[in-house]
Amino acid sequence: MTEFRRDPIIGRWVIIAEERGKRPSDFTEEEYTVQRGFCPFCEGNEGWTPPEILAVRDQPCATNQPGWQLRVVPNKYPALNTYGQIDRHDDDLFQHMSGIGAHEVIIETPDHNTSLADLSTEHFFQVIKAYQARLQALANDKRLELAIVFKNHGRPAGASLEHSHSQLIALPIIPKRVAEELQGAQTYFANKDRCIYCDIIKSELAAEIRVIDQSDEFVVIAPYASRFPFEMWLLPRTHSSHFEHIPEHILRALARFFQKQLTRLNQALSSPPYNFLLHTSPFADRSTAYYHWHIEIIPKLSRVAGFEWGTGFYINPTSPEQATLFLKGNE
Amino acid sequence: MTEFRRDPIIGRWVIIAEERGKRPSDFTEEEYTVQRGFCPFCEGNEGWTPPEILAVRDQPCATNQPGWQLRVVPNKYPALNTYGQIDRHDDDLFQHMSGIGAHEVIIETPDHNTSLADLSTEHFFQVIKAYQARLQALANDKRLELAIVFKNHGRPAGASLEHSHSQLIALPIIPKRVAEELQGAQTYFANKDRCIYCDIIKSELAAEIRVIDQSDEFVVIAPYASRFPFEMWLLPRTHSSHFEHIPEHILRALARFFQKQLTRLNQALSSPPYNFLLHTSPFADRSTAYYHWHIEIIPKLSRVAGFEWGTGFYINPTSPEQATLFLKGNE
Repeated sequence: MTEFRRDPIIGRWVIIAEERGKRPSDFTEEEYTVQRGFCPFCEGNEGWTPPEILAVRDQPCATNQPGWQLRVVPNKYPALNTYGQIDRHDDDLFQHMSGIGAHEVIIETPDHNTSLADLSTEHFFQVIKAYQARLQALANDKRLELAIVFKNHGRPAGASLEHSHSQLIALPIIPKRVAEELQGAQTYFANKDRCIYCDIIKSELAAEIRVIDQSDEFVVIAPYASRFPFEMWLLPRTHSSHFEHIPEHILRALARFFQKQLTRLNQALSSPPYNFLLHTSPFADRSTAYYHWHIEIIPKLSRVAGFEWGTGFYINPTSPEQATLFLKGNE
Repeated sequence: MTEFRRDPIIGRWVIIAEERGKRPSDFTEEEYTVQRGFCPFCEGNEGWTPPEILAVRDQPCATNQPGWQLRVVPNKYPALNTYGQIDRHDDDLFQHMSGIGAHEVIIETPDHNTSLADLSTEHFFQVIKAYQARLQALANDKRLELAIVFKNHGRPAGASLEHSHSQLIALPIIPKRVAEELQGAQTYFANKDRCIYCDIIKSELAAEIRVIDQSDEFVVIAPYASRFPFEMWLLPRTHSSHFEHIPEHILRALARFFQKQLTRLNQALSSPPYNFLLHTSPFADRSTAYYHWHIEIIPKLSRVAGFEWGTGFYINPTSPEQATLFLKGNE
């Protein structure tokens, strides 16, 4: 049974996913399917995933059959269970609760060898539209507080299957780091009556040295206190708190701009492994003036070592100003 | 010039170590010296490191010459500078300060092929005595708030040189994660008038299911909300806030017990890469009743992926109770 457990000292929640029940020997070599010649995400292998939740198809046809462009399926080894009520136990030191939530996989393309950056713009748009559709659907589940959409691209970035996919995890609690962001943004708003992200965008556009790219609707910057070399934050220029509320024409503009940044990353850093992660407001909040959805993109170039995970303090060997120059290239 | 920068939203400090000035191509393959046949940490190569700060030698002999068992040297590419005053700048959004601090390397053995777990108990004792000596010395530097001693063992755990070594970083600010621990422990103490670590030890010794080993002086547990599979916390049974205050006979007992746990890790998990990290009280605090020094040991078995770094929320596929059984083995 999967459960959430709370660290009694700093209050961090973790998911203990015992169903995966990993023994020491299970860690020796993780599966990376291409090497075994079989991929459950490829067209024709629909039976190897749980039944689809959503799919984009050119022609109307039966579900869980070939003929799709994109599928959303529950994770076959979910870290969380979809069904059940939240059961919470507190004793003096230790708190735990049942591992309710959603863990979904967005299979971005039927083709094993196409990466997200290589999709057509229309196809890329369908991918982020699927993110939005799933967020909209999960927002109606009153047990859930928040969802995170993320992608692990390449083995060093944590991908366990090579076939291009992203993931969505929806949680009944707000994770520590997101809660800190919300809190920081709320405090700033309480003091200044302005969104801190809007102020950062304004300040960065004026200073220019950390602006990697901009369009009418979006901006991508190297954040001032970047944790990782070549870290990028993509933000909408106009204040917007919830990704699930974006109108379609803005989502289309995002598809073009976001894909351009992934292509930039591939060109500047020779197609590195990377993670990206969508930060958006908790479901319960209606549109707010203080929080601003954004996408964090991190190429995985260096190893995070003992010092970083132990202290929450990062050492970054490339300044964001330098990173901006490299990422802008010879534009 | 190295500098500390503060994230304006969540207040996390990072070190931008521009002196390292890493360009994209510098990340392709990090050095891992054995492959190049030369190691600056080996006996006879003393000239390749900055001059030693401390050394243990069998015979009195000249510094920075062969004949040592253990050397402490400044990091050749330090993330922080030892000299200078702390210069702090705040503007509306962005805060930064000069990168003052210490970054030292403890070369644990002159022999390239001996690992920490394989040292004699006396030699292992000399290593942790060196940690203590350096903490005691740095505690006198009024610019510094805290030091962290840590080890990255093996490439996947972030070691850039194979030769067995640990590191020490001393900082003029308290890192976020450590500050959260101190705060959590203080809050608990304010409510209960007891140390939370002492209470955890008592509770775990009674429950037994997460106790991996114990001696008269120490206990090692799989923490209740373990972030990583086979995570271990080593704590003194008697309350103690500062590692630099431990008397020598307890330090000797620690050497025996700590080394035993590293051997246990090697046996249970086939000599995995690992990190360990010593958490001890800030220098400025005299002995306190609320914080309890401890060592966190994390074998590096799985990759930390997008979800974890983006949310501060960990998914752990092995429960600490299961991990305890595996780590105890057939005792």
